[in-house]
Amino acid sequence: MVRSELINPKSIVVVGASNNIQKPGGKILKNILDHNYKGQLYVVNPGSDFVQGIKSYQNVDELPDKIDLAILAIASHLCPDAVDTLTSKKGVKAFIIISAGFGEESKEGAMLEKRIVDTINSVGGSLIGPNCTGVFNTNYAGIFTTPIPKPEIHGCDFITASGATGVFIVDLCITRGLPFSSIYSVGNSAQLGVEDILEYMDETFDSQISSKVKLLYMENVKKPQKLLKHAQSLISKGCKIAAIKAGYSEAGSRAAASHTGAMITPDVGVDALFKKAGIVRCYGRDDLVTVASIFMHKELEGKRLAIITHAGGPAVMLTDALSHSDLEIPPLKGEKAQELLSYLYPGSSVNNPIDFLATGNAEQLGIILDYCEHEFNNIDGMVVIFGSPGLFPIFDVYNVLHEKMKTCKKPIYPILPCEIEVAEEVKDFIAKGHVRFPDEVLFARGLISVYNTPKPQINFELPEIDKTAIREIINNSNNGFLPPEKVSKLLDAAGIPRAKEIVVSNYKEIDEALKEIAFPLVMKVVGPVHKTDIGGVVLNVNSKEKLLSEFERLIKIPDSKGVLLQPMLSGIELFIGSKKEGDFGHIVTAGLGGIFVEVLKDIQTALAPVSFDEALKMIKNLKSYKLIKGVRGSTGVDEAVFANIIQRVSALMYVAQEITEMDINPLLGNGSSIVAVDARINVQK
Amino acid sequence: MVRSELINPKSIVVVGASNNIQKPGGKILKNILDHNYKGQLYVVNPGSDFVQGIKSYQNVDELPDKIDLAILAIASHLCPDAVDTLTSKKGVKAFIIISAGFGEESKEGAMLEKRIVDTINSVGGSLIGPNCTGVFNTNYAGIFTTPIPKPEIHGCDFITASGATGVFIVDLCITRGLPFSSIYSVGNSAQLGVEDILEYMDETFDSQISSKVKLLYMENVKKPQKLLKHAQSLISKGCKIAAIKAGYSEAGSRAAASHTGAMITPDVGVDALFKKAGIVRCYGRDDLVTVASIFMHKELEGKRLAIITHAGGPAVMLTDALSHSDLEIPPLKGEKAQELLSYLYPGSSVNNPIDFLATGNAEQLGIILDYCEHEFNNIDGMVVIFGSPGLFPIFDVYNVLHEKMKTCKKPIYPILPCEIEVAEEVKDFIAKGHVRFPDEVLFARGLISVYNTPKPQINFELPEIDKTAIREIINNSNNGFLPPEKVSKLLDAAGIPRAKEIVVSNYKEIDEALKEIAFPLVMKVVGPVHKTDIGGVVLNVNSKEKLLSEFERLIKIPDSKGVLLQPMLSGIELFIGSKKEGDFGHIVTAGLGGIFVEVLKDIQTALAPVSFDEALKMIKNLKSYKLIKGVRGSTGVDEAVFANIIQRVSALMYVAQEITEMDINPLLGNGSSIVAVDARINVQK
Repeated sequence: MVRSELINPKSIVVVGASNNIQKPGGKILKNILDHNYKGQLYVVNPGSDFVQGIKSYQNVDELPDKIDLAILAIASHLCPDAVDTLTSKKGVKAFIIISAGFGEESKEGAMLEKRIVDTINSVGGSLIGPNCTGVFNTNYAGIFTTPIPKPEIHGCDFITASGATGVFIVDLCITRGLPFSSIYSVGNSAQLGVEDILEYMDETFDSQISSKVKLLYMENVKKPQKLLKHAQSLISKGCKIAAIKAGYSEAGSRAAASHTGAMITPDVGVDALFKKAGIVRCYGRDDLVTVASIFMHKELEGKRLAIITHAGGPAVMLTDALSHSDLEIPPLKGEKAQELLSYLYPGSSVNNPIDFLATGNAEQLGIILDYCEHEFNNIDGMVVIFGSPGLFPIFDVYNVLHEKMKTCKKPIYPILPCEIEVAEEVKDFIAKGHVRFPDEVLFARGLISVYNTPKPQINFELPEIDKTAIREIINNSNNGFLPPEKVSKLLDAAGIPRAKEIVVSNYKEIDEALKEIAFPLVMKVVGPVHKTDIGGVVLNVNSKEKLLSEFERLIKIPDSKGVLLQPMLSGIELFIGSKKEGDFGHIVTAGLGGIFVEVLKDIQTALAPVSFDEALKMIKNLKSYKLIKGVRGSTGVDEAVFANIIQRVSALMYVAQEITEMDINPLLGNGSSIVAVDARINVQK
Repeated sequence: MVRSELINPKSIVVVGASNNIQKPGGKILKNILDHNYKGQLYVVNPGSDFVQGIKSYQNVDELPDKIDLAILAIASHLCPDAVDTLTSKKGVKAFIIISAGFGEESKEGAMLEKRIVDTINSVGGSLIGPNCTGVFNTNYAGIFTTPIPKPEIHGCDFITASGATGVFIVDLCITRGLPFSSIYSVGNSAQLGVEDILEYMDETFDSQISSKVKLLYMENVKKPQKLLKHAQSLISKGCKIAAIKAGYSEAGSRAAASHTGAMITPDVGVDALFKKAGIVRCYGRDDLVTVASIFMHKELEGKRLAIITHAGGPAVMLTDALSHSDLEIPPLKGEKAQELLSYLYPGSSVNNPIDFLATGNAEQLGIILDYCEHEFNNIDGMVVIFGSPGLFPIFDVYNVLHEKMKTCKKPIYPILPCEIEVAEEVKDFIAKGHVRFPDEVLFARGLISVYNTPKPQINFELPEIDKTAIREIINNSNNGFLPPEKVSKLLDAAGIPRAKEIVVSNYKEIDEALKEIAFPLVMKVVGPVHKTDIGGVVLNVNSKEKLLSEFERLIKIPDSKGVLLQPMLSGIELFIGSKKEGDFGHIVTAGLGGIFVEVLKDIQTALAPVSFDEALKMIKNLKSYKLIKGVRGSTGVDEAVFANIIQRVSALMYVAQEITEMDINPLLGNGSSIVAVDARINVQK
């Protein structure tokens, strides 16, 4: 849907261009004129003969034929007709509509918006907006806001669903030194949304010339599967993606809904999707820009950092901040460390952090970086913290940093903590193509986010399950919670081990059942949903006498349809659940049962289909993981078996998309024996 | 120890002053000259007749008598003699030594340092440093680093244990608009440390003229009780204190004999101290400066915020970020809200966030702020997010902000997200005495830290306990773990309910015991420490036969000194512990027992003595708190009773300071019945 005319227009018309550069229609023309556009530029403004020095057409009809891109900055009610004329008579196939007053404002506006989209769709065209700030790339600055960043093909690609937020993020990026390859403000996303632009970037990706850093700001995820597919694909091609999905809290999503008028996106789905795609999730502007800055450096191949500083305090704070992660600051010892120390002033330390004192100089920094690059095999990357107490210029230090960043294969992250006294040095450093991290703790948080984001999960297999049997059961089921026997059959077909169970509703059936299972037993009422709350579960039934008396009671509970008998098993209570979250598909959850899920909410989630690695990671990330490993000599639960069952639930969802909700709670785990004891499955066709 | 000559010197001599302002001795003189010093200035430099235009003395002997403050910027080995002469012949009683090469570098340096301190102590003098950047206040800029902040008596007081870190923090503060009342770089803290400066600030506090914002950067806490006392005192006088204690992850290598002990690191002491004092703990420079910026605003009297914005995205991210706290963004409804809406452009929203759109103007902002101040009773403070897409200047908007911040009684926090296009507006706004928050999410984290920091706990009473009995037991005990009977007596004397228990070591004693307690019983081996691991605990003993057979087994366990019999109690397992942490005193811990303490590390801590409010807050902050409240109809635990027992443990520590470690694990809680079942007490005199 993204046409090349939008990306690299040979000609542009700005409809509603103005001489007043305090107006969007004036500013966008100025930006295009000021920033490098090489094509043919037209303007339409009925009140002027010339706008900013360019001959003005009085209306769109008068324009020459064959214009690649039209940018509309006119009142919303004038847009549909203009689009009609431009598509039908002028061959325009790419549009950016910066005007507001559409779906975001009123029903009438939504109708105007629909008319425009229909028209553009009918010619196979592209539309960015309406209610957006525009598009910027290395070909043209079709955006009405400032500041305009440095265009660079290997800079960041940035897609934003909020124009103003985009401006604020770009502003911050510029102060840090980040260049941009493109900016798309998608506004109301009437036709093209964040996901569509990403799709375009994926489909046109060229490892030589495409930028590898993508930044997203979203307030909802309209097309989760598209986002997932192309994010995964781009990341497997070597890209890095960081995204803010604002409105993750209930209050925040209400605020977002009132801001954009959009639907509330379930955050559990967003989180699972980001994890599965390998998108680094960010929560604020500074956070996003910090992660983007990390992306612009060489890849950290490993997890061991050297911290190099002339000021002890920030190195200590950075060490503290990294201690919340698996990133390491390994000690530097032995001959080479002693050798390095000999180059530094007395009182320096090379333990890591490497502290070469307030008096440390550029030459010493160079030597330290060389040792970290060539001599210390237990170092994968370097963080340099260097500011100034204001005594003398430190161009020499930042030049060494610049040189070493060019030549070293390991990444070097520069923390430059001073803005005022070394403003010129920082400016010079940034002008050489670098990025500044101002704060070591915020840097650490960003680096941890990057490090903790899993690689995209693609090309894996789910366990074999009996698809035919599953489809047959589902096809023959009504909507609602399935009866226990169907649940059992589905578990069997999915290869999920379950406790033997027999439903009885009279004394004769009880006698039959007792031939097959032995005391001690568990008895559960069949029918009511929250069995425990109504006394519908009896544990440890040891005798026929007890069994009969409890049967009498259970069968009389309202809605009781029988009583289920199971052998009394022991082990660690586990649970696995799955819930359909609209277009996100099924979210699979797992954890320990009982209070762990109910009180401590200690659950982990993944978007289906779940790979074995993902399932294992879900288990390992539980707060109660130690219990699964086994504490104080007790038998734990075999993680591989648990992971396999999680995968089987995921495989079941894949075959039976009609399952909206499934809970196995509990499963009882005892070493490699994990057995489903109770399960509920809800089907909605 | 802090003399007035250090704070407001009538005369200063810079020993080692230089014409080279790239040297500390040159720069510090320049800073004093450039910034407002009104007193008499002398310099000593043997090689020059004039230094920076001031007549230079060739050595300290030649100086006139009676100089208030000497700043030393000479080689470390020259300092002791200079200090000797200055104290004995020139009457100098205040010193700032910026020279390095002392205790931080070598043993020889430490000896020089000691000689200096002894000399200065002998005349009752004050010493800042050595190895520091100096002192800055509204009287003089006795500091060799730049930038020099705006001096203002109601600016921040900042005490830093790291000179360079201090520079970086000051740099950031200046860019945000924060003025300073004083900066103390304490360097090696040879005489005066962070705690001593704080003591001075407390003792000389004048609510009219003293600054109410104190910032601390520390890498260790040498005098915790002094810090606690004066921080509490200052905060109760209306001050706000924020502090970084760097190096929190370095602590904690101490092996401990018991579970609770294993989890306590010295950082637990720092954390508990900060909570008790009411100090807002910060973890990085940006964090500290953000909190300091919040401190510079009017007090938020309540927890309900209005978010006012012309850009939806940041408001959504701010709402998200605040959702992690008890701070609220209450909906604005009713007649007044409708009235307000009528002043805004179509499409605006007053739901809260109040979004008055990209086209929103200064006048509308003023109206919104007036409504929040006067009409909406459910609003306690306002956050205004306002940047610019770069179309036109926004001085008018920031002026409205400035005016309303002056007149409104509720705090208004300005989030100004743009640096580049509105640089002049921001500069103007800051020049009017305001502070800029650049990022809404970082602001939210700071505000949450401030909001979550408890008020200082002072002037509370501990429960009455039997001090005489306790002292008698402790006085008559040897070092090490106390025997069970002494533990029981201590619990009784402290009023801590415990399970009835009888120790038996032969059949006759068993028969006697069975007259007093009834089955079911618990049996525990007496002697070994980790009873459970060695099969030393038997639950649910139901008959004499079982009792006798288990007795035979238990009495044969190595180190067994008998067998303890207790009635078998049921309830929620709780624990309370206490451990002495050096000069911090006792840290009291509490939580749920079993896996909650051992696996989930779900513990809360407080520095003794523990107030009732603190004990309650410990309970409420547990992740497993819901279990204490009772889930699914089960009886929980009476929080007031639990809190009272926590206080009793704290009271016991107060009377018996020799207790280095105590664990009550478990206590069994059942409604208002909470009974200690097992306890260990270690005494070291």
